[in-house]
Amino acid sequence: MANNEDIFKKIISHAKEYGFVFPSSEIYDGLSAVYDYGQYGVELKNNIKNYWWRAMVQYHENIVGIDSAIFMHPTIWKASGHVDAFSDPMIDNKDSKKRYRADVLVEDYAAKIEDKINKEVEKAAKRFGESFDEAQFRATNQRVVEYQAKITDALARLNKNLTDNDLAAVKQLIEELEIVCPVSGTKNWTEVRQFNLMFNTQMGSLSEDTNTIYLRPETAQGIFVNFLNVLKTGRMKVPFGIAQIGKAFRNEIVARQFIFRMREFEQMEMQFFVRPGTELDWFEKWKAERLAWHHSLGLGPENYRFHPHDKLAHYANAACDIEFKFPFGFKELEGIHSRTDFDLSAHQQYSGKKLQYFDPELNESYVPYVIETSIGLDRTFLAILSNAYTEEKLEDGSERVVLRIPPVLAPIKAAILPLIKKDGLPEKAREIMDSLKFDYQCQYDEKDAIGRRYRRQDAIGTPYCITVDHQTLEDNTVTIRERDSMLQERVNIDAVSEIIRKKIAVKL
Amino acid sequence: MANNEDIFKKIISHAKEYGFVFPSSEIYDGLSAVYDYGQYGVELKNNIKNYWWRAMVQYHENIVGIDSAIFMHPTIWKASGHVDAFSDPMIDNKDSKKRYRADVLVEDYAAKIEDKINKEVEKAAKRFGESFDEAQFRATNQRVVEYQAKITDALARLNKNLTDNDLAAVKQLIEELEIVCPVSGTKNWTEVRQFNLMFNTQMGSLSEDTNTIYLRPETAQGIFVNFLNVLKTGRMKVPFGIAQIGKAFRNEIVARQFIFRMREFEQMEMQFFVRPGTELDWFEKWKAERLAWHHSLGLGPENYRFHPHDKLAHYANAACDIEFKFPFGFKELEGIHSRTDFDLSAHQQYSGKKLQYFDPELNESYVPYVIETSIGLDRTFLAILSNAYTEEKLEDGSERVVLRIPPVLAPIKAAILPLIKKDGLPEKAREIMDSLKFDYQCQYDEKDAIGRRYRRQDAIGTPYCITVDHQTLEDNTVTIRERDSMLQERVNIDAVSEIIRKKIAVKL
Repeated sequence: MANNEDIFKKIISHAKEYGFVFPSSEIYDGLSAVYDYGQYGVELKNNIKNYWWRAMVQYHENIVGIDSAIFMHPTIWKASGHVDAFSDPMIDNKDSKKRYRADVLVEDYAAKIEDKINKEVEKAAKRFGESFDEAQFRATNQRVVEYQAKITDALARLNKNLTDNDLAAVKQLIEELEIVCPVSGTKNWTEVRQFNLMFNTQMGSLSEDTNTIYLRPETAQGIFVNFLNVLKTGRMKVPFGIAQIGKAFRNEIVARQFIFRMREFEQMEMQFFVRPGTELDWFEKWKAERLAWHHSLGLGPENYRFHPHDKLAHYANAACDIEFKFPFGFKELEGIHSRTDFDLSAHQQYSGKKLQYFDPELNESYVPYVIETSIGLDRTFLAILSNAYTEEKLEDGSERVVLRIPPVLAPIKAAILPLIKKDGLPEKAREIMDSLKFDYQCQYDEKDAIGRRYRRQDAIGTPYCITVDHQTLEDNTVTIRERDSMLQERVNIDAVSEIIRKKIAVKL
Repeated sequence: MANNEDIFKKIISHAKEYGFVFPSSEIYDGLSAVYDYGQYGVELKNNIKNYWWRAMVQYHENIVGIDSAIFMHPTIWKASGHVDAFSDPMIDNKDSKKRYRADVLVEDYAAKIEDKINKEVEKAAKRFGESFDEAQFRATNQRVVEYQAKITDALARLNKNLTDNDLAAVKQLIEELEIVCPVSGTKNWTEVRQFNLMFNTQMGSLSEDTNTIYLRPETAQGIFVNFLNVLKTGRMKVPFGIAQIGKAFRNEIVARQFIFRMREFEQMEMQFFVRPGTELDWFEKWKAERLAWHHSLGLGPENYRFHPHDKLAHYANAACDIEFKFPFGFKELEGIHSRTDFDLSAHQQYSGKKLQYFDPELNESYVPYVIETSIGLDRTFLAILSNAYTEEKLEDGSERVVLRIPPVLAPIKAAILPLIKKDGLPEKAREIMDSLKFDYQCQYDEKDAIGRRYRRQDAIGTPYCITVDHQTLEDNTVTIRERDSMLQERVNIDAVSEIIRKKIAVKL
């Protein structure tokens, strides 16, 4: 675990050092849980967007895109349930003035006891040696059993209290567990209150119509409120989907893990409208199709798994995450949700507009059911980056850091490198650069020894290095070096563009 | 003029009816000055972004992109001058409770007198007939001269008062001009106050560190505060540029003209860092290069003009707009500004970090000067859409509406249409669709007569229609119909992909 944390730190530091991700406002000492994408990061991010858009919109005749604004009518968030229920329970310590998520305090309490259990297990394992039966020990050791009971009890009560929205009981639980503030060390707590995660702002300058509006906490509602417009103007027939890529904002109390959980982030969502009663079939189809999309990136199928939701949200009748093995463990990368007709019905009710589809086959109108696929763009970026990061020991004993980014997504597709900075090699390399750069993102580099230049391209994940040497001047050939294998192939200059174009093509 | 207004209304209505631009939150009766992009709008918008990014980033070795967050450290907006000076003067009428921009009230007053002058001129023109000399009349007619003096005087005083930031004098001017509230008809005004155009929100849930942060009113500052990170990690050498596409937000008091002036909008900005003293040369170079980019879209060079700024902003030593001829007249589409070292110096001062470049040729460090090119993405969209909108009378007496969108930017590149819905034509057309859709955005349509289908594709600007007819089954050929000329060419199916690919390629 320490090792994984270590690697995660290295990835974050590499991301900064090589222009992928910078802390926001860094010269002003940063802005918590907000990040900027650097010169290579923005290219990788754009390539991911494009890869998703192609798969979802371009390749599906019955899916179209939209781009709705971040600002929306505030009643939309009333209808969606966000105004009333999109919140976390908070508690303040009166002495330290620090604020905490009440549920996290209880979970941290449970984690501490878990640590104690693990220590008991470790000690026993040492004592008993090879004959140690951990399962039996956990089931029978009195101290461990008592610890485990405490954990189970605390989490069960927390869960029940939150489900009942009984905040007084959460407070009582914290008091009974004698949880102290990590800063002040006291148990002097305020009441537990709900804290809404939506950012709000004031729109309009006319005093009488100033409105509190929200920064959307998800892009999905922008799709639902445009359902009718797209249905009519796009002449859509159920089943059909509407896809969108865009920013969303959540005032997370505990934002952490680099770009995994940010206050400003980007989603790629698709809402698929189906005939009621068929939604669970479509749910399974989309689970399979989305997993196949992830697998197509080549990060290794063993790094993905389905995680069905234990507890369904109020709007869902089926839900499942696709989890990815991040350096900090398996975590949600994408959610696939059968949202029933909850959203369209709510907007129908709140707006007073009929949000229905006339199904010519059934000869009746209905509110379609919805399957949602919702993937975090920043999380996908992090999945690719952390999977790509590799430290290698080479045959000659030297080391390299290489980003094994899928070529189709790599920020720079090809680097053009004159072997040395004289004998007309730079001029020849420039010629190639000036022709290739119209095909895809290229980089010209003539500084330092060729080995160092290869290392630099490895570090930003450039899949192909084209080297111009003295033989080039004789027979018009160059070498193409492949990033991962480091193998070089000599080809005619005229063939380079097409060879690389094929290697970086979208293959879905 | 009435005619142009009429056409503008038609364009707005066409944009909605054909899925380009919808009013935001329309089922909730809309959100003022906010719009959503529909299924064709999002494709056009993405294509414009891509066209700009290619020209600016991919084709320029010394320009790289970034994608900085909307949320930034609040001190950034202090350094940039936005906290103190990014505001409009406001005044309320106490009877109607309506709020106005004080400067607009005076400008409207001037416009009304201008109307009176125009009426005098019209009357005189009728009276004198062909012998009428308008210039002489305007210069000598006593009433007109008096009117003109009133206008000149009012605007000069307004200008001086605003420059002096003397809001009391603006109030006095409004009173002296006896301007009444258009709603209440009274002169019962409040004082004039400055109203900041930045949206703000509260970030952070920890009570002690809750911060007021702003939604960025421009993307430029995200580039300046990342200058050092990009310089170092990208190994950049002056002159170099950083480009960015992203959302910006302004709480406009008077937002209007469809997507021309919105409260949430998107910018494509590039900041080019140069050696001090060379900035005016670069200013001219970028003016020429940006104009060439616009011309490359083929909307007609007569629709663009340079408009040098009369009054320079406090940070600029040269500034010029590229104006486009919108249906409502020539208006700013892009700004090119020589921003000196104002921004980097301000951030250096406020952050305490050295924002300098060591110039190896001069062997000295300096704060680079900056040329900015800043283009409105939504305005470019509107320019293309309004220029593309064409009503045509055809030879057979029928009419069509066609969007002559440049093929490289068209939302749908090709429509695949079986001539009739039987005889195996749909199956053949589907085959083509299922192969072509991997190359570019295509649409399959078999409903209604072929003429109606052509009209539908014309209305969304699809440059090529591929029609499958009975001859296709015999000799494997189809017709490709070109949108603007409506001419059809018969080609082999195997050649279609490449023919269209060449026609829609970026040619810069």
